Amino acid sequence: MKNMTAKTVLIVYAHQSAGSFNAAVKNAAVDELKKQGCRVLVSDLYEMKFKATATEDDINGAVKNPKHFRYGNETMLAWQEGRLASDIVDEHNKLKEADLVIFQFPMYWFSVPAIMKGWMDRVLTLGFAYTLEKRYSEGIFRNKKAMLSFTTGSHETMFSSNGINGDMNVTLWPIQNGVLNYCGFQVLAPQIFWAPTHLSSEAREGLLKGWCTRLQGLLNEAPLTFPPADIFDEGKGFQLKPEVREKQADSPFGLTVGHHLEKPLPPQSQMKAGV
Amino acid sequence: MKNMTAKTVLIVYAHQSAGSFNAAVKNAAVDELKKQGCRVLVSDLYEMKFKATATEDDINGAVKNPKHFRYGNETMLAWQEGRLASDIVDEHNKLKEADLVIFQFPMYWFSVPAIMKGWMDRVLTLGFAYTLEKRYSEGIFRNKKAMLSFTTGSHETMFSSNGINGDMNVTLWPIQNGVLNYCGFQVLAPQIFWAPTHLSSEAREGLLKGWCTRLQGLLNEAPLTFPPADIFDEGKGFQLKPEVREKQADSPFGLTVGHHLEKPLPPQSQMKAGV
Repeated sequence: MKNMTAKTVLIVYAHQSAGSFNAAVKNAAVDELKKQGCRVLVSDLYEMKFKATATEDDINGAVKNPKHFRYGNETMLAWQEGRLASDIVDEHNKLKEADLVIFQFPMYWFSVPAIMKGWMDRVLTLGFAYTLEKRYSEGIFRNKKAMLSFTTGSHETMFSSNGINGDMNVTLWPIQNGVLNYCGFQVLAPQIFWAPTHLSSEAREGLLKGWCTRLQGLLNEAPLTFPPADIFDEGKGFQLKPEVREKQADSPFGLTVGHHLEKPLPPQSQMKAGV
Repeated sequence: MKNMTAKTVLIVYAHQSAGSFNAAVKNAAVDELKKQGCRVLVSDLYEMKFKATATEDDINGAVKNPKHFRYGNETMLAWQEGRLASDIVDEHNKLKEADLVIFQFPMYWFSVPAIMKGWMDRVLTLGFAYTLEKRYSEGIFRNKKAMLSFTTGSHETMFSSNGINGDMNVTLWPIQNGVLNYCGFQVLAPQIFWAPTHLSSEAREGLLKGWCTRLQGLLNEAPLTFPPADIFDEGKGFQLKPEVREKQADSPFGLTVGHHLEKPLPPQSQMKAGV
């Protein structure tokens, strides 16, 4: 795959056990991407004993306002002044080099495990990863791609609009829109391994093969659709511009899961590109 | 408030600074609830240096399957055998006594801070907080109430269906449905403090007064609406029973945010009771 040569992929990985299916999925990605000539970096969060909590310890030297410590402001200043904790700087350096970031994890409580949320809270530093001017389609990482790859404990039927857990598209929205798209990443469709513990080892092998096949074309995939930031009017509380709303009037669906405009959600828009 | 006498309220609180608005909101709740005769327990997660990550260290003694450590199964066994880490047991004991749990936090990346996600990942132990048979409306904590109380960095207009961040009802769904309702909690409407750092100190005082007023009637509030677990057919992949789907055909709205049935979302259903 010529066009993947020399690309750098960062895998942020959160499973405690090298014997897990998540580990097998991560290992398959490392092998397949290297085979294609990619440089692969792995942040194995449990192995690194990655600090999950956002505290004053993330700043070397004095904080500016010890009476009212504001994590976002203080870490932005520390980043500007080269006083961020070294484990955050290490992740910044990996992120800067990455063309694609894959988050590999078992879904915990409809979201990422706390250790991975800690990576997001601490590494996506104000200033480095976003500012109020540079976010969403104007975001700092708009030339990078990112995706979620995860296992569930539930079957796919249970995570549908008809299923007991509700629509997976809704569950993914806060992470894919509020973290990845917010920082500007082009968000690739998630790779979801539905309830692998309920499968035979042959069936799990089949899932891994499918994943490897997808990995071969991954960096050429079209990303999910999110609205450009400039359709919202900054002068009016970042509300949708009336002309866009008007143009949308005939559509049977909302723009996205979150920008639903009191219409039905566009089907599978957080799961498939081109929706 | 006679009917709140002798109730126990647990506040799970995640802000680094005693000088923060989140601290003021937490303190106001402690004072107001005590005034009403409630017993108030506070888990001040940063102060406790609460461990956020789900690891083997959460189990005293040997794990059952060291080659493939499965956090859910292993901690369930440890709970049954009295071998869970003492900080988890302490939180279990608070939870058992609580009639109401208030989660107080600044929203980080469209969700709770990692340290609070760690509380959810570690304290809501399989067996203790849920089983596959005892969840949602059959959930273990169905006689308890829970609610989110949080600050945002964004204004309310930005978290609407027309706003740049999308509908807050969608953002809250995975937490309120996937964590709180999943464990059976009756979920009270969230208390949202929109962008308090952009307000004058007088305006912030006003918000605190409003909060105290709400606290006076909090335990009498009707909870948000979630569907009963038995409308999903366990024998058929926990899909909505056809007769329920049929009955729903005439409604202009879906059942909930996640169970939207390809219809518009019921407005404000994660923000207000009775929707």
